[in-house]
Amino acid sequence: MAALVPFSLLRNYSPFMLARPFIVKGCNLNFSKTVLPLPCRRLPFSARATHDEQAAAKAAAATADSGAPTIFDKIINKEIPSSIVYEDEKVLAFRDINPQAPVHVLVIPKVRDGLTELAKVTKLPYLYAEARHGEILGQLLYAARIVAEKEGILDGFRVVINSGPSACQSVYHLHLHVLGGRQMNWPPG
Amino acid sequence: MAALVPFSLLRNYSPFMLARPFIVKGCNLNFSKTVLPLPCRRLPFSARATHDEQAAAKAAAATADSGAPTIFDKIINKEIPSSIVYEDEKVLAFRDINPQAPVHVLVIPKVRDGLTELAKVTKLPYLYAEARHGEILGQLLYAARIVAEKEGILDGFRVVINSGPSACQSVYHLHLHVLGGRQMNWPPG
Repeated sequence: MAALVPFSLLRNYSPFMLARPFIVKGCNLNFSKTVLPLPCRRLPFSARATHDEQAAAKAAAATADSGAPTIFDKIINKEIPSSIVYEDEKVLAFRDINPQAPVHVLVIPKVRDGLTELAKVTKLPYLYAEARHGEILGQLLYAARIVAEKEGILDGFRVVINSGPSACQSVYHLHLHVLGGRQMNWPPG
Repeated sequence: MAALVPFSLLRNYSPFMLARPFIVKGCNLNFSKTVLPLPCRRLPFSARATHDEQAAAKAAAATADSGAPTIFDKIINKEIPSSIVYEDEKVLAFRDINPQAPVHVLVIPKVRDGLTELAKVTKLPYLYAEARHGEILGQLLYAARIVAEKEGILDGFRVVINSGPSACQSVYHLHLHVLGGRQMNWPPG
């Protein structure tokens, strides 16, 4: 069966890395035989990587309004494995499988509750941040601080939120990137 | 009197831009004759710009624990001018004078209340995000969404928080960067 991991989580991986199969037990049909990469390696920044990211983000945006579950739902439900860094009642933090720094953790709300992204052009309600989301937004940022402490990057780290295809958002479930363990550059992408 | 604008706000400007004096009225002594740049121009990304940013961040970190007012206090108090995009009781959003994208706005809490940065290595209390800051952290993120709407960048924008010198934080008053109006790249710096 062909691998069905969303390309958004496989972007920038080399064919060498993708060529090695890894059986994920306990997954549903879509993920019963999933090709996942080897433990992640940082790839050098290149124009190609950037263009891949942009293409992936545009493709993901095409179905952003569908309200369909994303790969994050399967991670939250432990249907596919992840390297969890922090978890509480409302927030889950796990390592990005395509890290852009020695430490690269994603922080997400366990319940999406309309938070597909921070803001967007849409007539549909409940698909972006509203005033009622203030509490969970604050909890996500505070969780980023906890992650930085747990990962030993208190000397310096960057929190990034991509909203929409122009910002390279590739999964439509609001998530914060926490990056550290190296000198971050400027501008931020 | 020599210009006393923190270099962190002047970084990356060319000598041509810095050579033109601009008198800021209504400022205190430190800012009575202040050299401010002309309306901002985007400079091409270069290694030099990155190194300047890193040096500025390291220098700023040296006094981060002093609790001294920052340039943002003067902007909040309207002692020096800024281009305000959004303001409410608790949050102020204004354009970065050294924009890294066609839209580049900073979102800050009007009262720092210990939020020098998101997290840090310190024995001093009240100089980083604590659980009690959850409400204002959420308000800042929600304000970023409002800024994106006002600036017409709902098709895509990036929110960035730098914490500490390794992330290029240069003003020790927590602030969110909201960037948009162009395709953002990956990795995020």
